[in-house]
Amino acid sequence: MSPNPLEEILHPQSIAVAGASETGDGGRFILALLKLGFKGKIYPVHPKYQEVRGIKCYPSVRDIPGNVDFVISSIPATQVLNLLDDCAMKGVKCIHFFTARFAETGRQDAIELEKEMLKRAKAAGIRIIGPNCMGVYHPGWGISWDPGMSNTPGPMGLISQSGALAYELIETAGTRGMHYSKGISYGNAVDFNECDYLEYFAQDDETKLVVLYIEGVRDGKRFLDILRKTTAKKPVIILKGGRGKSGTRATASHTASLAGSTEVWKTAMKQAGAVTVSDIEEMIDVAAAFYFLPPAYGNHVGVAGGGGGGSVLAADLCEEAGLDVIPLPAEIREELKKQGNPVWDWISNPADFSILPGGVGAEALSKMMAAHAAIDLNIVFIVPRGSRGPLTVDSLITQFPFDDMKSKPLFAILYDRSSGEKDPTGRITGIFTEFKNRLVEKSIPVYPNITRAANAAAKMVKFYKQQKTREKQ
Amino acid sequence: MSPNPLEEILHPQSIAVAGASETGDGGRFILALLKLGFKGKIYPVHPKYQEVRGIKCYPSVRDIPGNVDFVISSIPATQVLNLLDDCAMKGVKCIHFFTARFAETGRQDAIELEKEMLKRAKAAGIRIIGPNCMGVYHPGWGISWDPGMSNTPGPMGLISQSGALAYELIETAGTRGMHYSKGISYGNAVDFNECDYLEYFAQDDETKLVVLYIEGVRDGKRFLDILRKTTAKKPVIILKGGRGKSGTRATASHTASLAGSTEVWKTAMKQAGAVTVSDIEEMIDVAAAFYFLPPAYGNHVGVAGGGGGGSVLAADLCEEAGLDVIPLPAEIREELKKQGNPVWDWISNPADFSILPGGVGAEALSKMMAAHAAIDLNIVFIVPRGSRGPLTVDSLITQFPFDDMKSKPLFAILYDRSSGEKDPTGRITGIFTEFKNRLVEKSIPVYPNITRAANAAAKMVKFYKQQKTREKQ
Repeated sequence: MSPNPLEEILHPQSIAVAGASETGDGGRFILALLKLGFKGKIYPVHPKYQEVRGIKCYPSVRDIPGNVDFVISSIPATQVLNLLDDCAMKGVKCIHFFTARFAETGRQDAIELEKEMLKRAKAAGIRIIGPNCMGVYHPGWGISWDPGMSNTPGPMGLISQSGALAYELIETAGTRGMHYSKGISYGNAVDFNECDYLEYFAQDDETKLVVLYIEGVRDGKRFLDILRKTTAKKPVIILKGGRGKSGTRATASHTASLAGSTEVWKTAMKQAGAVTVSDIEEMIDVAAAFYFLPPAYGNHVGVAGGGGGGSVLAADLCEEAGLDVIPLPAEIREELKKQGNPVWDWISNPADFSILPGGVGAEALSKMMAAHAAIDLNIVFIVPRGSRGPLTVDSLITQFPFDDMKSKPLFAILYDRSSGEKDPTGRITGIFTEFKNRLVEKSIPVYPNITRAANAAAKMVKFYKQQKTREKQ
Repeated sequence: MSPNPLEEILHPQSIAVAGASETGDGGRFILALLKLGFKGKIYPVHPKYQEVRGIKCYPSVRDIPGNVDFVISSIPATQVLNLLDDCAMKGVKCIHFFTARFAETGRQDAIELEKEMLKRAKAAGIRIIGPNCMGVYHPGWGISWDPGMSNTPGPMGLISQSGALAYELIETAGTRGMHYSKGISYGNAVDFNECDYLEYFAQDDETKLVVLYIEGVRDGKRFLDILRKTTAKKPVIILKGGRGKSGTRATASHTASLAGSTEVWKTAMKQAGAVTVSDIEEMIDVAAAFYFLPPAYGNHVGVAGGGGGGSVLAADLCEEAGLDVIPLPAEIREELKKQGNPVWDWISNPADFSILPGGVGAEALSKMMAAHAAIDLNIVFIVPRGSRGPLTVDSLITQFPFDDMKSKPLFAILYDRSSGEKDPTGRITGIFTEFKNRLVEKSIPVYPNITRAANAAAKMVKFYKQQKTREKQ
């Protein structure tokens, strides 16, 4: 089998940025390469400048002395045909067109220009990423479009038709301690499209799960075929833009996509074994479950640590998400009785810790719930205040025997109300952040409420169950 | 019409706390009264102490020299009958039993004790709040159960069967700049129950909207009747605990409630004109819309300020929430053309500001959308970064002409990714907090994503439309 064509393209030895001025978008790409530590050659290209960001600048791609593997185009749409001719001359393998104002404008001349661009690229054997997109994020290789992005690699692959949403997905993931292998913002996708990118991530060993924002599919049959093959190997979480009447109208003017029927899409996604979500927040929530946790194949959930009302609501919300809040297993109740726990007959699942006198028995109960064969996964509430003492990282981290519970999927809930008038010095924010970092080190994801954790848990279980069923077929 | 009996009870001139030790729960009630600035007399009661929190302590309620209007009971359940006898002697009007371990334990002796307690109270003409609850929060009168709670009053009334969820609702509201007139955590509700509290808030001029967490209703007919009358005057947002199989099981051991059928409940809520929500976060989201915004009676929404992908998703999510994302009105498009805006034919609703060259025309467009008769409410995206300059409060507050837009309901979206490794010094958190405070001053609520804002908007519109329809009948 020949290697995936994107493998070489995503590992360039040299990158030229056409339209690189000191302060404009092109210069920003240069700055990003520098900040993330790209180790290959960087060539700013601009007819007016001698130097950009301290690096020698060339008047055109033709004038660059060495090989140029990859070009980022940050020039106006009117100049792209010239750039293509230069790149053809130079033997460039791939151009990422950050350049926009093509088919997405709906204007005839722009649509024609896009077609001509593709024609010339094909003739010259140049592959295209975009146009109208942010391009490649490859933290481990030092490539990004934003100098502020992390260069820490992780096991998550990102494919996004939208640049702004790719940014959101990268930044939001970062606040949860989640990092990417590679990410692609792919825009109008005249050449490489969602199928190619997904196929790449399917075979990429650095990628354990894939998140995909998509507005329209060019080749439905091929896409579903690749998707089915990918989900057999790793989770694919899909956020579809253009689901409704007005969203469909909006996709046309964003990436010139045809959105298609929502019902057909839903059925196709289900059959292909993809996990579907409806917004960015849910995407990261669900991705966090796959990112951090071992698989679970059953939906029996144990819930512990909430107060009375919180426990009632947790039960409702878990059930509504599709989890089964089973009664407390009889063996656990018997063991609590044996230990002399005064509420052995009263405590239940969800386990309301506020009825445990002085909290005695909480740790033993947590361990038993995590170990019991009838419980597939656990959700625990962290009490976000030190009502009986000062709030410290230790007052949070000692609320559960996390290390003893994490062999099964464990979701932690911490209501974060730190910012604002209650926390003028940022002390509480700091404590919460440190606590979350400590749990991330233990590979335990933290959610801000039960609704979001239960949803992520239910979607994770559903994926693994379906994957297992398909394996047997 | 005689005044509501709770009016006098919620405005006591003197409060005794039975079971007040320096560091225990009783002392915490004393500390809360001191911290919130209760202006009446405070009487700690405990047989062992001379003084609690610097205030003279009495061995029993009988021994208090002056009148005692209100008693907070923080003594064990075994001693409540004695306390009742003392209070009867002293002419106490109401006792709040923080004391728990009654019917909620499911144990026969505890159930009997609860019955006997109620019998003696009735005989003595003493009203009861609780037992098994946190009691009264009345910021304007200096009463709370938690010394850390705000004493700023606001127009929101709170009724919660759960103490912990009452706390969540108060604290979460606080981070959004929302405050309460009065709040009641009412637990097992042996005497005053949800009907009485709702009836109180219906007639209370300090209360413009009511949030209610409820696990079970004692008198369904009376409750629905009061609810219907209340929603004719002000919004009532209801969060029901014990909706599913496992939640129903949990309510029994929490507040000894019978949860009832979910389907019957849903229909009844709809008929009574209540707004229903499914968790704490949604409750505060929806309350914020009623709290800050003028009414809207139509669901035509204008969305502005997102990027391309964000606009597509916003359209989908608004539509899925029940809003109508109408095409950009022709008059606005014509006016943009007249102003020479180069994307007058391309820009739409949602208005993707990233296609406006240099952002020119954004302000004019925002004002036109806010003013147009075909648009009932607006949602605007705040870009949470200063990509072209430093992030400051001004870089956020100048993104929209807020003052010109707020005569119609206006929802602001600010994705908050401030905490964590991206903001080690808390600088960004501080800027976001200050920005949100500035919008709160303008009576504009801020939401962390479009899903939550669209849901709140749709539920607000639905309430006002139904209220108006009922008025005409």
